[in-house]
Amino acid sequence: MTRNIQVSELDRQAVEDQQVEIVERKGIGHPDSICDGIAESVSRALSQLYLDRVGKVLHYNTDETQLAAGRAAPAYGGGEVVEPIYILIVGRATKSYEQDGRQYELPVDSTALAAAREYLNENIPELEYGTDVVVDVRLGEGSGDLQDVFGEDEVQVPMANDTSFGVGHAPLTETETIVREIEHGLNGEYADENPVVGPDVKVMGKREGDQIDVTVAVAMVDAYVENLEAYKDAVAAVREYALGVARERTDREVSVEVNTADDYEEGSVYLTVTGTSAEQGDDGSVGRGNRANGLITPNRPMSMEATSGKNPVNHIGKIYNLLSTATAEAVVEEVEGIRDLQLRLLSQIGRPIDQPHVADAQVVTADDIEVEDLEADVTEIVDEKLANVTEITRAAIEGELSTF
Amino acid sequence: MTRNIQVSELDRQAVEDQQVEIVERKGIGHPDSICDGIAESVSRALSQLYLDRVGKVLHYNTDETQLAAGRAAPAYGGGEVVEPIYILIVGRATKSYEQDGRQYELPVDSTALAAAREYLNENIPELEYGTDVVVDVRLGEGSGDLQDVFGEDEVQVPMANDTSFGVGHAPLTETETIVREIEHGLNGEYADENPVVGPDVKVMGKREGDQIDVTVAVAMVDAYVENLEAYKDAVAAVREYALGVARERTDREVSVEVNTADDYEEGSVYLTVTGTSAEQGDDGSVGRGNRANGLITPNRPMSMEATSGKNPVNHIGKIYNLLSTATAEAVVEEVEGIRDLQLRLLSQIGRPIDQPHVADAQVVTADDIEVEDLEADVTEIVDEKLANVTEITRAAIEGELSTF
Amino acid sequence: MTRNIQVSELDRQAVEDQQVEIVERKGIGHPDSICDGIAESVSRALSQLYLDRVGKVLHYNTDETQLAAGRAAPAYGGGEVVEPIYILIVGRATKSYEQDGRQYELPVDSTALAAAREYLNENIPELEYGTDVVVDVRLGEGSGDLQDVFGEDEVQVPMANDTSFGVGHAPLTETETIVREIEHGLNGEYADENPVVGPDVKVMGKREGDQIDVTVAVAMVDAYVENLEAYKDAVAAVREYALGVARERTDREVSVEVNTADDYEEGSVYLTVTGTSAEQGDDGSVGRGNRANGLITPNRPMSMEATSGKNPVNHIGKIYNLLSTATAEAVVEEVEGIRDLQLRLLSQIGRPIDQPHVADAQVVTADDIEVEDLEADVTEIVDEKLANVTEITRAAIEGELSTF
Amino acid sequence: MTRNIQVSELDRQAVEDQQVEIVERKGIGHPDSICDGIAESVSRALSQLYLDRVGKVLHYNTDETQLAAGRAAPAYGGGEVVEPIYILIVGRATKSYEQDGRQYELPVDSTALAAAREYLNENIPELEYGTDVVVDVRLGEGSGDLQDVFGEDEVQVPMANDTSFGVGHAPLTETETIVREIEHGLNGEYADENPVVGPDVKVMGKREGDQIDVTVAVAMVDAYVENLEAYKDAVAAVREYALGVARERTDREVSVEVNTADDYEEGSVYLTVTGTSAEQGDDGSVGRGNRANGLITPNRPMSMEATSGKNPVNHIGKIYNLLSTATAEAVVEEVEGIRDLQLRLLSQIGRPIDQPHVADAQVVTADDIEVEDLEADVTEIVDEKLANVTEITRAAIEGELSTF
Repeated sequence: MTRNIQVSELDRQAVEDQQVEIVERKGIGHPDSICDGIAESVSRALSQLYLDRVGKVLHYNTDETQLAAGRAAPAYGGGEVVEPIYILIVGRATKSYEQDGRQYELPVDSTALAAAREYLNENIPELEYGTDVVVDVRLGEGSGDLQDVFGEDEVQVPMANDTSFGVGHAPLTETETIVREIEHGLNGEYADENPVVGPDVKVMGKREGDQIDVTVAVAMVDAYVENLEAYKDAVAAVREYALGVARERTDREVSVEVNTADDYEEGSVYLTVTGTSAEQGDDGSVGRGNRANGLITPNRPMSMEATSGKNPVNHIGKIYNLLSTATAEAVVEEVEGIRDLQLRLLSQIGRPIDQPHVADAQVVTADDIEVEDLEADVTEIVDEKLANVTEITRAAIEGELSTF
Repeated sequence: MTRNIQVSELDRQAVEDQQVEIVERKGIGHPDSICDGIAESVSRALSQLYLDRVGKVLHYNTDETQLAAGRAAPAYGGGEVVEPIYILIVGRATKSYEQDGRQYELPVDSTALAAAREYLNENIPELEYGTDVVVDVRLGEGSGDLQDVFGEDEVQVPMANDTSFGVGHAPLTETETIVREIEHGLNGEYADENPVVGPDVKVMGKREGDQIDVTVAVAMVDAYVENLEAYKDAVAAVREYALGVARERTDREVSVEVNTADDYEEGSVYLTVTGTSAEQGDDGSVGRGNRANGLITPNRPMSMEATSGKNPVNHIGKIYNLLSTATAEAVVEEVEGIRDLQLRLLSQIGRPIDQPHVADAQVVTADDIEVEDLEADVTEIVDEKLANVTEITRAAIEGELSTF
Repeated sequence: MTRNIQVSELDRQAVEDQQVEIVERKGIGHPDSICDGIAESVSRALSQLYLDRVGKVLHYNTDETQLAAGRAAPAYGGGEVVEPIYILIVGRATKSYEQDGRQYELPVDSTALAAAREYLNENIPELEYGTDVVVDVRLGEGSGDLQDVFGEDEVQVPMANDTSFGVGHAPLTETETIVREIEHGLNGEYADENPVVGPDVKVMGKREGDQIDVTVAVAMVDAYVENLEAYKDAVAAVREYALGVARERTDREVSVEVNTADDYEEGSVYLTVTGTSAEQGDDGSVGRGNRANGLITPNRPMSMEATSGKNPVNHIGKIYNLLSTATAEAVVEEVEGIRDLQLRLLSQIGRPIDQPHVADAQVVTADDIEVEDLEADVTEIVDEKLANVTEITRAAIEGELSTF
Repeated sequence: MTRNIQVSELDRQAVEDQQVEIVERKGIGHPDSICDGIAESVSRALSQLYLDRVGKVLHYNTDETQLAAGRAAPAYGGGEVVEPIYILIVGRATKSYEQDGRQYELPVDSTALAAAREYLNENIPELEYGTDVVVDVRLGEGSGDLQDVFGEDEVQVPMANDTSFGVGHAPLTETETIVREIEHGLNGEYADENPVVGPDVKVMGKREGDQIDVTVAVAMVDAYVENLEAYKDAVAAVREYALGVARERTDREVSVEVNTADDYEEGSVYLTVTGTSAEQGDDGSVGRGNRANGLITPNRPMSMEATSGKNPVNHIGKIYNLLSTATAEAVVEEVEGIRDLQLRLLSQIGRPIDQPHVADAQVVTADDIEVEDLEADVTEIVDEKLANVTEITRAAIEGELSTF
């Protein structure tokens, strides 16, 4: 059966050419991202548990982690958490299954808690599990429906059980790239060498015409800051690093500001014990921060749907958000002449998810290119990606795809 | 000081003229909307408490309510809740204040719980407080900073303490209007006469060209449904009503489907005890559903920022989302010749919030109108609305503005 | 089969004749008693639920309610609760059952919450449910074992599944009677006329020789106290009343002190908003207060076993504590010449509970009476009470027996 | 001032000579003991925190830990926890203090959680923190009253602020000794060599005349049990060991039964994953198990007061329970001719706690000894112990005294 794939001209300028552009990324240590990260790692752990025990993924949804902030007393040289952060994992999961006429229980809660602990230890290492942060779990019993679609023996394409919508874009604009790379760099290579930088890095980029202004907020870890002078040095070094990352990616004018809310005279600086503002009154929850491509981009259509924590076998919103993003990226990588591509996937209840109601690719082409020139190539790639939709499920379970 | 207000042409078609349009509204009984509603009513109650006791609104933020679904056993004629819904109110609030050298405590937690109880009793009346639903609260101590900006004696314009962004649109398209009015009607006049309709009404509208397809999901209340036949009648009546609402608002082709996931042969219908799917495994949280204008509109830029529960005195994201929406509506009401208006407000840290970095009004004009013809009028209205920004705070505290 | 009933002389003086005697009763509004009361009312509600739905009592145990105190700001004329009391109902209960090959769910959690709400409304009426106090529930799934022993059709005597021990005494000494009656009176007839007296009444009696000193602590309800003078009047009136109750029951010297920790000069008095110290930092839990006979009596052997909240069908500790008390009372009522009776029941695993390992009645007889004179009568009554052991179960379910 | 110390004859037989004696000890892994142990270790950690930071112990009380059992699926060779145990630490604690005009916060919650984690890791090592067990904390703000009584510079004797009562006994009877030593041995030297024995060891001793029957329940750890045969071997070995311990301490007839509820035919044995029944539906809380001397002894007067978790500086019930026990032991060690000693301490509100209302030592003397012969010696030791009452506080803080 032929898929309903449409390729048309996008009725607006490429975002890169718009006058004003705003982009934001909440780094992995931001309270909302912590929730996204836990929700998704719990999801992966449950998928794996079901595959190991039952040979197929059973019904679950864990996209509702809530973080209630703690309180801390940071201090130069090292302060302490005073009141622990509280994280509640919320969702549904199948807790038992039948085999050969016997009922077996599944360690769903313990698996979720273990996944959260491992995730936190790896990503927010200064946060001591069980004292700086308490994690609890409320996973209701899901309906017992087995989802046979993604098992070890067979991989069927599931039916859409909801009208849902996913949207992806490519390529990233310069501002988007800069925002993402600054966060990745600070939380990656830079943090490896400079433990003073906590994982709660928030980057906002604003471009007006050819001027890009980047604002970075970094939760500095107090144990690595001797005094106010050392703090100022740390801020300056982050600024220098971020400026370097940005300048590699654009020829436009770039400015970078770091921790702009600081007030040195009042001694008010962005100092934390654990590297996240969750220790100091910033609550968080799933789906409130970055979209599936890791960015918040008010210049582009976005799906409200939370991606992290959803069941990757049958949650159509998650699958279409991840698929549309991956597909848009594949298209612009393989097809030349695209300045901006927006791919929307709309499900149709009761039809296999590789047969969307419509796959709607809208493009802004390069000056000398017509949409007609690209249409066949774009259609082919979209078609192939849809045909392999279960690959998204596999990649999500194996942690190859980032969801926030 | 002159405000930086820009009026320009929107570089796309009016949404009304686009080929495909998708609109969604989660009714007040949807789990996400329940959280929005509680968060906002807690916010209002705390503002009022501070005004009553201290004469000004103190620091708080209550935009993180989390709902963990319960379990129910609905049955024709009336079933029962088996496992209660659990709602956790999360946030920060100032819990004491000093006056004349004495420290006074404020009943912040009790006030929040009372607001939640009252809100639920009014809006989800079938949900018995304390048995069908358990509400708990974790409000951390906020920083003690007094916010002098909105008190009884004086109304100052606060400074922006964050770079934030609000966006509003007007007028609504036909599809947007239809989606909104069907939900309002079903939860209003229709429910008054037909208690079978629970408050968890979800409406999705999809327009392709001149065909509008509306999908309505209604949680029917089992106590008012004798049997399957009665259920079918209730579904048919909702469909009839929704169709009527839609046809009043468009000349396009309209179809309405209600509770499409039902399977009459298997006896699987959308029956609930309390009128919300929160009783049956659907979790919810703040900011995951409707945007500040009550709709989810992937065709338009949206702010990710949750509006409900935020402090209306100084949370720039909340204020700008509400203000941009109200302003856009005022503009199209007073200025003729606008097919589509998109108003973005971008804050600038450290400047009064009535002085945004930029107020960016982009319009699609009617065929015979130029942007220049409108510019002065639009600018004037935007300017006036910005000048009266604290009116948004007042209206939010008094519950005159809907936030979801 | 003959029951192993032994009647012997108690190798000590009657408590009435001992030099020093200490007796305490925590009134129904004391935090520990609130937990006992909720646990037992939840137990009764679950028993009733099982009887109504399944025709027999299924497995459950709800003897672990925990209360975490709140905070209040009492004030003459009426203060307010600042931070609500938190109560967690903990235990096990069977949540579903099979009938005719179908599985039915039971509203165990909702039933427990409803029972707690009703109990609190009735017994601590000033405590507003849902705002002054939050009640949550954690009832684990019990083992699915059906307990056929106490159903509608049949009443079998269950087997003891544990080595357990119950002990009862009769008659009460004067001091015990006085302590009990003062609390009953203050929380009964006196409170009906004087709403200033909250249910958190704690009475301690100490007798040295023929001098009985009674200390009463009463949580006064601030809404009924205009000022310090009114408070002093209320204290004096309670003292008068308590003295009257005591003098009716003894010819010994009696003194009564009320709210001895008050310090009028510092304005520190025992004033509460809700009539219980649970609003002001006093935590509570089940089984920490009164024994099954309503008293704490260090002069007598006591069972550590919590009675409230236990399953009355098969929990041997609960049954033997209630039975030994009821039996001791019956014996002294019917048999003359007993100054002090102590009845111990010791279970034997695997035997019916009406066949204890030993029923050990120890007596202090009146001067002119020998144990032998009473032995036959005592044995007969004990034997009959054991034969009707399931009567204890029925009476507990129907709320005819107090457990604390 | 002379202390009111009375020495008189106990008006009953020595417990050793009574016909029937019942003794019980809940081992450290029993759910009630887990709560006692956590409560006391939290108490010690808070005392230490206050001493370190403020130089004196501030107000707190943490005697209300509640455990809600989990669920496990044990299996020969190693099963798993399916639903984690939930432990809630409840109490009051001072969370900040003033020094030199500045307010400092104290990490009370984090300290409590750290103490609980350390305690569990040490004592229930198979229980993995954070996944097999979730620990949360609700410590309310205590009244800010500083307790100057036990600081670094000075050690004052505090005033009694309550009428309270402590009771201690010595020497232990043979049955008491056997019960205690079997538990200590199994959880000590025996477990070191035999990891199959979990810490949830419950020992009940019953003596009738000269026959002592001991019942031991041991939660076997499944990872160390290959199959039913291995389980039977483990049971037999425990029985052998316990019998040996008992026979060393008595010449009476002894029988030992282990895990009597097992049913080998049905394959129902006492197998656990973590070595505690808390993983399988047994809830627990503070003060419901062993008394301050580590035993439950219905033949002796017992205080209902929970000792574990109470503030050792000023909680009169805790201090008098520990002091009366320590004093009774000291007396029988130094004074010959005592078969049974019962020491009661009764506080008097408003007087220093080293001046009890009465210290009442009642003795059963050896055949040839009169009370008068001992009176002076007993009085002297009691007097000295009272004079050094703050030594109890110190020992409790430093963990030298067991409270359960």
